[in-house]
Order: sequence, then C-alpha cells, then structure tokens
Amino acid sequence: MGDKKKILIQLDGDPHPSVFDRVVAVDAGADCVFSYGGVKPDGVRDLVYGAIFTRGPEDLKSTAIFIGGSDVTLGESLLGAVRKSFLGPLRVSVLLDGAGANTTAAAAVIVAGRSAPLRGKRALVLGSSGPVGRRVATLLARQGAHVLVGSRSAERAAEVAATVRTAITGSDVHPVATGVAEDLLQALQGIQVVIAAGGPGVCLLPRDARVKARSLEVAIDLNAVPPEGIEGVKGGDFAKERDGVTAYGAIGVGGLKMKIHKAAVRQLFEANDQVLDVEAVFDLGSRLAPA
Amino acid sequence: MGDKKKILIQLDGDPHPSVFDRVVAVDAGADCVFSYGGVKPDGVRDLVYGAIFTRGPEDLKSTAIFIGGSDVTLGESLLGAVRKSFLGPLRVSVLLDGAGANTTAAAAVIVAGRSAPLRGKRALVLGSSGPVGRRVATLLARQGAHVLVGSRSAERAAEVAATVRTAITGSDVHPVATGVAEDLLQALQGIQVVIAAGGPGVCLLPRDARVKARSLEVAIDLNAVPPEGIEGVKGGDFAKERDGVTAYGAIGVGGLKMKIHKAAVRQLFEANDQVLDVEAVFDLGSRLAPA
Amino acid sequence: MGDKKKILIQLDGDPHPSVFDRVVAVDAGADCVFSYGGVKPDGVRDLVYGAIFTRGPEDLKSTAIFIGGSDVTLGESLLGAVRKSFLGPLRVSVLLDGAGANTTAAAAVIVAGRSAPLRGKRALVLGSSGPVGRRVATLLARQGAHVLVGSRSAERAAEVAATVRTAITGSDVHPVATGVAEDLLQALQGIQVVIAAGGPGVCLLPRDARVKARSLEVAIDLNAVPPEGIEGVKGGDFAKERDGVTAYGAIGVGGLKMKIHKAAVRQLFEANDQVLDVEAVFDLGSRLAPA
Repeated sequence: MGDKKKILIQLDGDPHPSVFDRVVAVDAGADCVFSYGGVKPDGVRDLVYGAIFTRGPEDLKSTAIFIGGSDVTLGESLLGAVRKSFLGPLRVSVLLDGAGANTTAAAAVIVAGRSAPLRGKRALVLGSSGPVGRRVATLLARQGAHVLVGSRSAERAAEVAATVRTAITGSDVHPVATGVAEDLLQALQGIQVVIAAGGPGVCLLPRDARVKARSLEVAIDLNAVPPEGIEGVKGGDFAKERDGVTAYGAIGVGGLKMKIHKAAVRQLFEANDQVLDVEAVFDLGSRLAPA
Repeated sequence: MGDKKKILIQLDGDPHPSVFDRVVAVDAGADCVFSYGGVKPDGVRDLVYGAIFTRGPEDLKSTAIFIGGSDVTLGESLLGAVRKSFLGPLRVSVLLDGAGANTTAAAAVIVAGRSAPLRGKRALVLGSSGPVGRRVATLLARQGAHVLVGSRSAERAAEVAATVRTAITGSDVHPVATGVAEDLLQALQGIQVVIAAGGPGVCLLPRDARVKARSLEVAIDLNAVPPEGIEGVKGGDFAKERDGVTAYGAIGVGGLKMKIHKAAVRQLFEANDQVLDVEAVFDLGSRLAPA
Repeated sequence: MGDKKKILIQLDGDPHPSVFDRVVAVDAGADCVFSYGGVKPDGVRDLVYGAIFTRGPEDLKSTAIFIGGSDVTLGESLLGAVRKSFLGPLRVSVLLDGAGANTTAAAAVIVAGRSAPLRGKRALVLGSSGPVGRRVATLLARQGAHVLVGSRSAERAAEVAATVRTAITGSDVHPVATGVAEDLLQALQGIQVVIAAGGPGVCLLPRDARVKARSLEVAIDLNAVPPEGIEGVKGGDFAKERDGVTAYGAIGVGGLKMKIHKAAVRQLFEANDQVLDVEAVFDLGSRLAPA
C-alpha cells in the first residue's frame, strides 16, 4: 500500500511548536503534520509507540519524526529518547534540526567548499561554541580541512576542539581564543576560509582584521541580525566579491539551508530506518548543490 | 508558484484554540490550519517569523494569520504584536475576530441597512460597552447614522461615545444611560434602528417600551440565549415583521455572520498585506450581501 | 452539500493527544484531525459548540468527535460532557475509545466467538477489574455466555460482577478470586473460554494450571508485554493450537482491533447522531469479521 498519507510528527521542546518547521514540512510534501510542543524526553516513548504501532511494516516509511525547537541540547535528548523507543524493525525515520542548526551548518560548509574542495584548507570558525559553530567545525574537520575553532573564551574553544577531535578520528582541530584583537589577527594567519557562527548582535571579525588576512579566500557570516558578524559581508551576499574574498551572508546561505531542510523532510519518507543528524544532512545537501 | 498550500495560522488566547474558528477555516478553503492556544503577546514574534521567513515573496499570500479567542482585548494585543513583528514587505495577511465580535458587528450593521441606507438614521445601541456593541456603534457612525450608545452605566456609555467619536472623525455619537425604564423610553424617542448587543440572559428592551417607540423601523437582537435581549424578537427572525418593525434575531444575523467569516478567510489568501479588522470585515460583508 | 471535509475532533485527557489515534484517524479517511490534549470535562462544552454551530444540519455528519486518552474513566466523563452539550438535533457522532479499551475488548470477544457461538459457553475473564476486562465481561454476558469475572482481589471481582449484572439484564455473571493457585484451578473447572486482560508484566494463568483445564477450547491473552499473561500463548498467535486449545495473543487480536478502530471512525461520518461506545463498537466489529 504505497498510498498512505505522509505523516510528519513534529516534536518540539518549546511551548508553541515552530511555525517555521510546520510550513517547511507542508511545502516539502508532508500530507499531515502532527505538532507537539513542550515535549520532554520522558513524554517521547508514547508518541513514538503511536508512530510505530499503527501502520504495517511496509507503510512505516510514510510516518516520520521531525525534532526541532530552540533548545538544541534538548533536541538531542529527544532524539536519544526517540531512538531508545524503537523496537528493532519497528521504527520510523527521524530528522533532527533544533534551531535549524544542522541545516544551517550543512549549508555553510557546502558553500565554503563550492569553489574549491575543503580538504587541506585552513579554516577558522568564529563563535564555534554555539550549536551551529560546533556543527560547522565538525563538518569542516570531516571534509579534511585544518580547523581552528575560535571563541572569546579559551576554555570553551578548547572544549569544542576536544569534542570535534573525539568525534572525527584523525582530524586536525585546534582551539584559539579570539577575544583580543591581537589574538584574532594571529589566528587569521594563513586562514583561507572563515565562518562566523556567533549569536546575533556581535561583530566577530572587524573589517581591518579581515583585510589584513591576505590568505583569505572565502568569508561566510551566518548572523542575520545587525551588526554584521563579519564586517562588510552583507546578509544577501552569495559568492559576492568583497575586498578580493568570496563572501556569503546569512540570507545567501539561507536559500540553500531551506532547500536542504525540504530535501531532508522528503528524504524521511523514502525509508523507515534513517536518522538524519548533521552528517547525513550535509551529505544530502552536497548532492543537491551544484558543484 | 501559485500552487502552495493555503496555511492559516490560528492564534488563540484560550487554552484550547477554538473549534468553531478551525471548522470555518477548513470550510473557507484553508488547506492547513496551524492552531495555537494559550498565545500571549510575547509569544507572537517567533510564530510570525515562522510565517514570513519560510516562503518567497510571491508565495507569502498563501500563508495568513487568524486571531481569535474569547478575550477580545487580548486578541487586539495579539494583533498589535503581529503587526510589530512584520518586517516591511515580509508580512502576511491577518484577520481579527476575537469572540466573533468583528463578523457579528459587521453582519448586524449590514442587516440594519438592508431596507434603507443608514446615513442620517437615528440609531440606538443597547449594551454598547461590550466588544460587539462598541463595534456596532463604530460601524453605524462610520455609515453616517446618528448614534446613541446605551449602557446601564452612564460612565461606560460616556466612555464608549468618546471612543467612537475619536475613531470616526465628524461622527455624531452620544451616550445614554438606559438602566432605568424612564431613561430608556426617553432614549427611544425618534429612534429608527435599535440593536441590542448585551450579554446573554439580560432583556435590554422590554416589549412595552418597544411598542411605545413609534419611530422604530428595525430591531436587531444579537443575544441568542434566553431571555430575549429585545422582548418579542425571536432568535430565528430575519426581516420578520414584529409589531410593525422589521426584526432580526441572533440566528437570523448569524447566517450572514458565517458567510462574512468565510469570505474574510478566503480574502486573506488574495494578497499578503491585508489587515482585516472590523471596518475591512464590514466592507467585505457589504459586497457579499444582496442590496 | 456532501462535499464538506471530514473533520474528526480528538479529545484526549493526556497532555499530548495520542499519536496512535491521530494516525488511525488519518488512515480511516478523516480529512482533518483537530487534536486537543489535556481536555477536562469543563472544557468540553465550548469545543462541542464549535462542532455543532458551524455547519448546517445536512453537513453535521461530516464533523465527529473521538474521545481517547490513557485514563479511561476520564474519557467516560468527557463523553458525558459531550452528550450534555448537544442541543437536540444539533449534535455530532462520537466514538469513545480511551486507552483503546473498547476496540480491544470488542476484538477479543469477537475472536472468542469465531469458532463457535458464545451463547451458553462458560467463560472466565482474568484481570477483569481493569478497563478492558470489564468491557470483555460485559460483552461476553451480552452474548449470552456464563461469565466468571476473576481478580486477585475478591472485592474487586465482586464489584465487577455486580456492575455487569446491572448493565446486562438477565446475565449470568459471578465473581471469583484468582490470586491463589487453588482458587484459580477451581475457577477453571468447566471453563471453555479464558480471556486474560491484566496489566503488563503479570502472568495470570501459568501453563500447569492451563493444561489441567481439560474443558478449555479458547485462550486469549491481551497482554503484549512479557511475561505472557497466559503462559505459552505467544503475542502473534491467531487461532494457533496450543496444547489442544485455540490461542490468540495480543498482536493477533490487535490486527482485528485496528480494523475495528478504523471502521468505527469511518462509521462516524455516516450520520450525526451516533454514540459508539463498547456495544456499538462490538456490533460494528462483528459485521466486519468473517464468520
């Protein structure tokens, strides 16, 4: 029976389940979206049982789970609870994209590698201790880049570097404190790709530091709220030349992010055994984007 | 892409978002209704961002917002919060109809003017200090009627009159206390149209007072719960002659109210920049009703 | 207008309305499911009014109510509140299936009578004081079986027996305490049909007791969680011979339960005046199942 309606179950830790994720689900072709807000890990099992005990094995791929919400750590806990609730082949596919962190990081690293492969490139991630920054660093390392993970706090930078090194065997990832102008300049030495993944309202790379970084080839700013995270890179930039550097802004990257999000939702309904976390989302996005 | 599904986002201050409004939304052609209950003004921005950041400019008209809920004042606050969240052309159309007050008031004033234009008519609104009464008074004034706004409390009547006069420049609106039988008789002198918009269970116009009002042409009772708000006017009356007066009851008016509600929802999906508050709802209803 | 979308309003006492019931509703052909969680009896009236005041009399059969949730007693209270909210012919059809108890009990009793009519059979219900057990006992009595209702507590058994006798005039129902092995053996004397409806994780009928019951023809275990409620009956059993007895397990019965659940939802949209509680669900299921 290939004619079952496609049901996406949205699990969201926020009181009001995200409108954004619901609209994208509809536009990606889900026939029904069951939206749950205020979801906690201990409420997950019964919801998952409802997903896996209702349709026959051949129809389980027409039911899927999307985990979102502004709290990315909570989203990861929900994913853990979902996976623990599966009973062998009785399972459905899941996409994790709390705060859009997975699709945003995937889109950023895909555009970073648009003009030249990332293997062997020297990359700096600013604001790397946030959910998007961590994922960007992980994906860059996985692609074989040499990665500096920057944070205003040396401790946080060290923690991120250790986490990524553990996750990606053989990766070349080092921490760098970027709170002081001199340290930032030092960190930029030899860097070819810089990605700013800080929160809204903070400029992480002023123009004067940027123009001194002669080795820079690509600059990606994921912050959409003024001031610019990388001074001089505009939100709408997409492969725009800025002072000799190929620049991408948050809205420019956002177009690809949205395409990836929709493709990932569509992908859920292809089989019932997928877990689309950041790496699967990146792989899927890579197949979408033109070389 | 004119093929996007029509999504109506229902923002409702009550814990359970209204079934009534959801059914009407479906019957008016919305493909998906995203229902949110317990909505407070400070939760609105993220919901609106989800509406305006997901579809391209040409598709924004396929997403719209409906604001309902039993607390009409809260609904107005939600509308304010929605409008503040729009970012220039990044906006969607909105319909406000908390407690059905806008569609009910529009329907009442439209039937009031069915047989003869309201310009220059002398109208009395009983129970004018409630959400429906205030809107009825405003619409009557806007149509050029001379309006007496009645309330059992002289203070509340004065406040309503002042509010309507401020809203409708050049309007002729005066307060009248109607709690005492003599005052009510006095107020009815020369009145051609009377509309009772009080709460359930209160008779605002006894039959003996009504039959003494020789100038009366139209009597509209918006109260559906016994006893009658205008004694002798039955719920189902629609242009029914009662003691020489053309009478309309709550159910009679309700049929038009429902048509207006549905038409207003359909109208939302015509363009992305509409705000359908009471006056726009009235105008839309006027085009619907046969002359 | 037979073209109105089929709307199912799901009232659920649990904080998150059941995914299971939503999926079944979709698969049974409901076009829209309005899901409400955390519903209490005093919140029901406004929800029902929204159902009955929105569509014309001829279209009311396209709106229906499903009452679910894990608390079966609360579900019964919600049904009471729903029925009290109807206004004469202004009503919609309702299906009660809190915790799946009605559809499960119906399926169990239908399979119990598959090979031979239940009239005059001697049946024992183990774990009869739970919501499924009570319903099983009621349906067996209604079919004309001689019913023993078992419970580890003699008091609870007596209460269940009294309740069923009151509900089904002329029924032959007696209580039996089954907590002690000897009592259980005694109770099994002459029993032809045994149905175990206890909670998860409790074995109500050990193999040695079962094989001593020479009169036994049919054994049905409704517990899906190990250990088996009837030792030796497997979850997937459907008319499987086990030691000379025709055995049915929870999953085996579950297939019919699901068919009944879907058929009951479809049935809701046939007319606007049905109340599908356990007996109507049983009758409907009996017409489905092959003789």
